[in-house]
Amino acid sequence: MIIDCHGHYTTAPPALEAWRNRQVAALGNPAATPKASELKIGDDELRESIASNQLKKMKERGIDLTIFSPRASFMAHHIGDFETSSAWAAICNELCHRVAGLFPDEFIGAAMLPQSPGVDPATWIPELERCVKEYGFVGVNLNPDPSGGHWTSPPLTDRHWYPIYEKLVEYDIPAMVHVSTSCNACFHATGAHYLNADTTAFMQCLSGDLFRDFPTLRLVIPHGGGAVPYHWGRFRGLAEMLKKPLLRDHLLHNIFFDTCVYHQPGIDLLTKVIPVENVLFASEMIGAVRGIDPETGFAYDDTKRYIEAAALTPQQRKQIYEGNVRRVYPRLDAALRRRGH
Amino acid sequence: MIIDCHGHYTTAPPALEAWRNRQVAALGNPAATPKASELKIGDDELRESIASNQLKKMKERGIDLTIFSPRASFMAHHIGDFETSSAWAAICNELCHRVAGLFPDEFIGAAMLPQSPGVDPATWIPELERCVKEYGFVGVNLNPDPSGGHWTSPPLTDRHWYPIYEKLVEYDIPAMVHVSTSCNACFHATGAHYLNADTTAFMQCLSGDLFRDFPTLRLVIPHGGGAVPYHWGRFRGLAEMLKKPLLRDHLLHNIFFDTCVYHQPGIDLLTKVIPVENVLFASEMIGAVRGIDPETGFAYDDTKRYIEAAALTPQQRKQIYEGNVRRVYPRLDAALRRRGH
Repeated sequence: MIIDCHGHYTTAPPALEAWRNRQVAALGNPAATPKASELKIGDDELRESIASNQLKKMKERGIDLTIFSPRASFMAHHIGDFETSSAWAAICNELCHRVAGLFPDEFIGAAMLPQSPGVDPATWIPELERCVKEYGFVGVNLNPDPSGGHWTSPPLTDRHWYPIYEKLVEYDIPAMVHVSTSCNACFHATGAHYLNADTTAFMQCLSGDLFRDFPTLRLVIPHGGGAVPYHWGRFRGLAEMLKKPLLRDHLLHNIFFDTCVYHQPGIDLLTKVIPVENVLFASEMIGAVRGIDPETGFAYDDTKRYIEAAALTPQQRKQIYEGNVRRVYPRLDAALRRRGH
Repeated sequence: MIIDCHGHYTTAPPALEAWRNRQVAALGNPAATPKASELKIGDDELRESIASNQLKKMKERGIDLTIFSPRASFMAHHIGDFETSSAWAAICNELCHRVAGLFPDEFIGAAMLPQSPGVDPATWIPELERCVKEYGFVGVNLNPDPSGGHWTSPPLTDRHWYPIYEKLVEYDIPAMVHVSTSCNACFHATGAHYLNADTTAFMQCLSGDLFRDFPTLRLVIPHGGGAVPYHWGRFRGLAEMLKKPLLRDHLLHNIFFDTCVYHQPGIDLLTKVIPVENVLFASEMIGAVRGIDPETGFAYDDTKRYIEAAALTPQQRKQIYEGNVRRVYPRLDAALRRRGH
């Protein structure tokens, strides 16, 4: 079984964006705020938006199941306040839930949180609870920078974040550390902000002792861990200088990297440097990079091809494709067991 | 000949830091500002600070010459105003000039600029001119984020920066794009901010058309290019999506990566993915990572070992060690020719 742990609903029907635009336009004028019930998307539309896009490519590529969350760049937690994000997260999560209901064998949900700059993470818990208890979601995306490129929140190791970690540990749910779009002109969203956030989050964890307080908390760092595996020697050396244990002991019980690295040499490095039990299959398809690589003739984000060609044993490949994902996402594992997998 | 294009004066005598501390302490009280002449460091002290540190390691490792600039993390352009940075840059550059005078065969200078957030880059030109004309410096460090982790300046492709580019082109001097310390708690300086800045600068250039306006401008992106080579497929795909030419045509006449990547798999990836003519030897020794790698028994930053072990021909190694550096830093090449190299 091949599980993609990193998919977003990037192909939602245009009515979703139209609703969001109305919500944003009404920011200064609450009376004009659209109601959630004003968004009308039928099941046929949902089905079509998936069947001709993600599902089509999954079948072509041989991917069985995708952990599916709202479009990352649309989370835009910097817009409006908690109420804005709360209404928006509820809508986006519900759509992913409906997709998972329409395609129960191929999609399972992960939640977006109603984050907002400066807001207490405890306020995000009701939405998380709803997604886990009512929707059966198995993961969550945690934005380490709800300001959208201004980095005004404390590091992920700060007690500020502890309320959400407590709930994640209680539910035994991992968080993918995933920023949203950048409203800082210095940072291109998918070409800089995403990768920078991955590197930043890892280094925050390296500098701190978060997993001493939360030994069972699990964080998935997407996009192959940003710059981290490429600079693994630097991080090993920095850990030593900061008098931390070896990275394997300090971080690798709790931090995992996905395989959203869009060329063979990158995946070769990732799978060589990072212990195989810390690598989770993912493609973020349909996402940041949608073209065909002229050097290979295949889609950049067809990451399964790189895993197939990497110097791995069949057993290691199986770990990356399935075993590790089921271990890191135990609620996914439980759902699959209930279905006889 | 082996040339390290990325060395900083991280081992300056303590009097330098003491002077800086007095300067910073006097920020609210200009009358207390120390004069440059109050900093007294003798030639013997300078000689000792180099001979027992950088020079010792250069001899051990077989490095002939280092392009030597003021300590990057001490630039701290966010502190004070232009006058503050101006006095500080003048002092730091003069010290590097004196080091190069004491060890003319082993060190040649690169300048720190008196950057300050929001200040017109034209104001930095007199210091650059002094360093080039009086000191014979061959390069310059350009900080893309003088705010120190808040990223309040426009992207490097913005016309804001053009006055300094015009001067660099006139002098035929490359800029190493190098941030200083981070005063944003989210970003560890050497573990996140440095690498993020490298990735960010590359993506800014990718998104823009800077080299159409400055076809001979050359930027060196340090630390192996941040996350860029590891994600080369992503960047190739993003260039296509942004309707830019192939990266080789769009950026690689103007952008170069150094080899400050502190483990073998990273250097293997760098030298496999990036054309050899775009890779410049460097170690940033003595810098961010000072320990001995327990996995190899050698210093993390002894990057020559990785180049020696990489799958390169002797001719390619010579390009990385010398040829490329002399091509990208023509004033260095001219100085070496004058000395018969």
